[in-house]
Amino acid sequence: MKDCLFCKIVSGEIPSAKIHETKNTLAFLDISPINPGHTLIIPKTHYEDIFQMPDDTLAETAIETKFVGNALKKATDARGISVITRNSRAAGQEIDHSHTHVIPRYVGDGHKSWTGKKYRNGEIEKMTDKIKKEIQTAL
Amino acid sequence: MKDCLFCKIVSGEIPSAKIHETKNTLAFLDISPINPGHTLIIPKTHYEDIFQMPDDTLAETAIETKFVGNALKKATDARGISVITRNSRAAGQEIDHSHTHVIPRYVGDGHKSWTGKKYRNGEIEKMTDKIKKEIQTAL
Repeated sequence: MKDCLFCKIVSGEIPSAKIHETKNTLAFLDISPINPGHTLIIPKTHYEDIFQMPDDTLAETAIETKFVGNALKKATDARGISVITRNSRAAGQEIDHSHTHVIPRYVGDGHKSWTGKKYRNGEIEKMTDKIKKEIQTAL
Repeated sequence: MKDCLFCKIVSGEIPSAKIHETKNTLAFLDISPINPGHTLIIPKTHYEDIFQMPDDTLAETAIETKFVGNALKKATDARGISVITRNSRAAGQEIDHSHTHVIPRYVGDGHKSWTGKKYRNGEIEKMTDKIKKEIQTAL
C-alpha cells in the first residue's frame, strides 16, 4: 500500500533488520524496542489489523511467532516472551499494517503489567450473554 | 493437569463465564478484566506456554482470536482490541496454562502503552546477526 512504512519494508524500499521470513510473513527488529531483540512479525500483504487478515495468514503468523520467539530466547537469554498485537489506535497500534510484537522479557525489566478491575454483581453474566449473542449471530 | 486452575475450568470442576469453544480451545471471560468483556482463549490441553503448544493448536487459537475479537467489538462497542500472550513469569504470566488475552480497548482507558528504547550504533546489526544465527541453527 502506498505510503505504508511496513509495505516499504516488505518491498525493500526502506531498509530493516530482517531476521526471518515465511511465505506470507516477514520478521524484523523493532527499532524502538522494549528490550533488545524485540521483533515485529508482519504479513507481507497489507492488512490493517488481524480482523482483515485471512485465517491462513493468521495461522502462519502464530506458528512463526513460536519459531522466532524460541530463537529470541536463545539469542537474548530472555526469561520470558511477551506476544502483543494491538488493533486500532485505541489499542495503541501506531502503524496501520498489522504487526505482532515478540518481546524478550526479564524479571523487573520495567515493562509494566496491569491491575485488573472487578465485575460488579451480575455484570459478568450480562456481559457473557451479550457476547454469546454476537457469537451466535456470527456463526 | 492436577492443581491447574484452567484445566479445572476446561473440565467444568471450576465454573467460568464461557463464551465459545472450538475443538481444541476454550474462550471465557477473565474475572479481573482490563475492560469488561476481556476474554481468555486457552488450549483445552495443558500446555504451559506457546512454546509447548503444537502448531495446529496455535493456528486454531489465532483464528479463534479473530472470531472472538469480532464478537467482542460488537458486544462491547470497543474501539480497538489488544491481543496479549505472556509466556513465563518474567513476561507477567500468572497461570501456567497458556492463555491469550483478547481485550476490548477504548481511547484513554488507562491501559498504558510503552515507550521504546533506542539501539546504540551498531547494536541492532549485532542483535540481528545473533538472532539469525539461532534461526539458522533451528532450521
